[in-house]
Amino acid sequence: MSAPHLWELVERAALVNASGEAIIFGDSRTTWRETRDATETLAMKLVGAGVGRGDRVAILAANSDRFIQALFAIARIGAIAAPINTRLALEEMEGLARDAEPRLLLTDAAFEKQALTIQAQGAVPIVARLDAVSGAVSSIDSAQAGALPPLGDASDTTCLLYTGGTTGRPKGVMHNSDSLVMNVFQSADILGSPRDMRFVHVAPMFHIGAIAYVVAVTMHAGTHIPLPAFDPEAVLNAIGANQATHVTLVPTMIARVLDCPTFADKNLSSLRRIIYGASPIPETLLTRAIEALPHVEFGQSYGQTETITITVLPAQRHITSGALAGKLKSAGLPAPGAMVEVRTSDGAIAARGELGEICVRSGSLMSGYWRNPEATAATLRDGYVHTGDIGFMDEEGFVTVVDRLKDMIITGGENVYSVEVEDALFRHPAIAECAVIGLPHSEWGEKVHAVVRLKDNTRASAEELIAFCRTRIAAFKAPRSITFSATPLPLSGAGKVLKREIRDALAREGAR
Amino acid sequence: MSAPHLWELVERAALVNASGEAIIFGDSRTTWRETRDATETLAMKLVGAGVGRGDRVAILAANSDRFIQALFAIARIGAIAAPINTRLALEEMEGLARDAEPRLLLTDAAFEKQALTIQAQGAVPIVARLDAVSGAVSSIDSAQAGALPPLGDASDTTCLLYTGGTTGRPKGVMHNSDSLVMNVFQSADILGSPRDMRFVHVAPMFHIGAIAYVVAVTMHAGTHIPLPAFDPEAVLNAIGANQATHVTLVPTMIARVLDCPTFADKNLSSLRRIIYGASPIPETLLTRAIEALPHVEFGQSYGQTETITITVLPAQRHITSGALAGKLKSAGLPAPGAMVEVRTSDGAIAARGELGEICVRSGSLMSGYWRNPEATAATLRDGYVHTGDIGFMDEEGFVTVVDRLKDMIITGGENVYSVEVEDALFRHPAIAECAVIGLPHSEWGEKVHAVVRLKDNTRASAEELIAFCRTRIAAFKAPRSITFSATPLPLSGAGKVLKREIRDALAREGAR
Repeated sequence: MSAPHLWELVERAALVNASGEAIIFGDSRTTWRETRDATETLAMKLVGAGVGRGDRVAILAANSDRFIQALFAIARIGAIAAPINTRLALEEMEGLARDAEPRLLLTDAAFEKQALTIQAQGAVPIVARLDAVSGAVSSIDSAQAGALPPLGDASDTTCLLYTGGTTGRPKGVMHNSDSLVMNVFQSADILGSPRDMRFVHVAPMFHIGAIAYVVAVTMHAGTHIPLPAFDPEAVLNAIGANQATHVTLVPTMIARVLDCPTFADKNLSSLRRIIYGASPIPETLLTRAIEALPHVEFGQSYGQTETITITVLPAQRHITSGALAGKLKSAGLPAPGAMVEVRTSDGAIAARGELGEICVRSGSLMSGYWRNPEATAATLRDGYVHTGDIGFMDEEGFVTVVDRLKDMIITGGENVYSVEVEDALFRHPAIAECAVIGLPHSEWGEKVHAVVRLKDNTRASAEELIAFCRTRIAAFKAPRSITFSATPLPLSGAGKVLKREIRDALAREGAR
Repeated sequence: MSAPHLWELVERAALVNASGEAIIFGDSRTTWRETRDATETLAMKLVGAGVGRGDRVAILAANSDRFIQALFAIARIGAIAAPINTRLALEEMEGLARDAEPRLLLTDAAFEKQALTIQAQGAVPIVARLDAVSGAVSSIDSAQAGALPPLGDASDTTCLLYTGGTTGRPKGVMHNSDSLVMNVFQSADILGSPRDMRFVHVAPMFHIGAIAYVVAVTMHAGTHIPLPAFDPEAVLNAIGANQATHVTLVPTMIARVLDCPTFADKNLSSLRRIIYGASPIPETLLTRAIEALPHVEFGQSYGQTETITITVLPAQRHITSGALAGKLKSAGLPAPGAMVEVRTSDGAIAARGELGEICVRSGSLMSGYWRNPEATAATLRDGYVHTGDIGFMDEEGFVTVVDRLKDMIITGGENVYSVEVEDALFRHPAIAECAVIGLPHSEWGEKVHAVVRLKDNTRASAEELIAFCRTRIAAFKAPRSITFSATPLPLSGAGKVLKREIRDALAREGAR
């Protein structure tokens, strides 16, 4: 016996909340019965367009009602959704498409141009618009309807979610219906009460952090309110206009929402819960948020694309005083079903309070990396995902993440692997050495910072190097600031740049 | 990837709530760390007593801390718990033991005598006391500790729960770690908030209705408060003394608790939720309960031993007026993950409102009946358990159970199969014909009633026939009342007694 299939969640929602609102997107409102039928029709159109079981369907589009339908339609026919991060540079998008080898690329008005370029480069044979209104590209709606296959197994891969890889090559994290559904069951605490949930999806749906809640809302037959992009005022308006109860916002976004000049004018009485992840919430920000929104509860989840939810910091621990306080810097408690072990470098289980690598076994783990058995074997060992994150577990079981083995920066909710940025910098002819690190940033959590040493007799300005990077990698990955070093960077015995020393030196110099 | 193993729930509870109270039983209070260790020790003792993977361990005991430990210890070593209904007649207990073929029978002070008789009859080789204090029988604690095997698979059978069978032969419903854990995930709504749950277990732990919540409380690292027997005042005292938040009570028990003369003196302020099942709650009873306990929420679950939870009637539908009212007679909505179909006699899906057999596919289904492939094949077809219950689904997805195909009576929360009672009656030499039905009863929900026709020239009083039954079947199964018929009972064309006609006739005669 396994967890219900993603498609069965849609069927159940249409059964128990047939005339209830399923998706509110702009002026469009659809019931669960309509959404179920539209999703099934989309599934038939995909079959008609030649998508078969196991085929990949890339999606390059902003959040929308159709994006949600596409995820479930693809699951219905046993195909594999491969959503592409819309903020990537064109070259990176192409790289993902070549890796996924999709049969079809679904796009929308905003990303049609990039989609056509990807097609022109030969990385995908067919491009179709996901939104009904046709542009230069015809809509998937114009495809012939094909016959639906029987529902597949819940353990069939249903999506590839790409993470930047430290090796440079993108890694497609494979999830299936089981891992996505088990994640919702296991992390139920993050939702508080799921009853009559009206959920504003701000996080982009190419991220597991959005997909997880698309599945959760569908399981509970709630109402999806997808927003195509993050804008503080649009979030506030979406909550007020639609009596939204839940929203996911990274701490950076919470701050920007609170800072919105019209914040005080908005009606946020329906809001019950703000869910955040990617980083702990600063105490000053929480205090501000509680003062501004005293009726709202907060829930933090910690996880990775590879694991989905590992820990949850419950609402009642979002306090700054009293007996239950003191956990705000932690990532919370292991979700029921997530077996968390902190392991020392020799593989032993760390004592409480002792640092080690956070490892997790759980029903929500990926099945592996797409066509990358070496990377899978390195990460998924003995049934545990080795997160690469360094942390500790306290006496009460709370997990605190203190550093990342994988040399990753989280800026504004996006993961940036230092090595990718370093690779881009090294392509500039003047660069002799470089090291990319995250520096604390009040708005983005961390900002991407590079320390570089130029070759003798060369010149380059920070502006020039940043602009150079932006032509090669996504703008959010490019350094925001650069420090020039006249001396060689500090190296470990093994020849690795000692980033901790660089961070310490910058801190001493007050470079922050 | 599957759901966490039952044993992992214990491990996690010891991780995240090590010094929190795990079990309060009488004067004994144990933390989760202690409970984990005691359970592991018990598992080692079972191995030492010769219990291996797949062996059955019968349990004939009242609810206790040790009963809870035993369930998880047996799961830890991959053995199979076979708890025996303590209210059965000795002959019935023996029958179950012969069917389960246990390696060991665990018992306690209250049931040691019956256990020894079962052993003397050759139905089990070893009897050991579960409670530490030894009587005539030595405690399992005195066994040598054996070496623990590796943790088994979550799909290995971990318990056999016996239901009376319409065929006369007892049927052992096989559940595994997966089905028990998925049930908790899927029926989360029944718990309301599981945070800091302190749960009074009144239902006997040989019932799925108790075991399901033993698993739930463990998953959430809450506090178990097992009571050895139902007594209204003991329930009230257990809630007040231990700040209990949750209790399971069938509607019959709710009425008796409210009727308790000392009810008004008790402090029930900690109670958040009353969970009930087995039958809908009468509107008058709910009204009384809401008036007496305005701060308490109610949750109904409907299911069978074979399915565990099928539907949940949420707390906010426990109302007698307003827009959301009108669902009290229903059993609620399909749990997320429970795919419910109402099927007409030709196998088609019934229209909304149309009667049919309630069928369910779910992660919480049994894997089958123990050593009974014919019964399994008859009940579990195409992945659906055919419940035998007749009902309908309304436009909003709520399921109402109107009758039971299986000719079963639910009296005081216990299932009684009419055929078992009829079999007992037929053994009396004076009985020519009989039909056993359930009649509405204000306290027990239904009472067992028999309509009999005596053979010509014989005599027997109701008292005599009831006493006769009690020597052969459990007291709760014996008729509470008997109507004598001078004319043959109404038969269908196929020669089956038409019980509906008998019920209607009794209603007309005001026999209720």
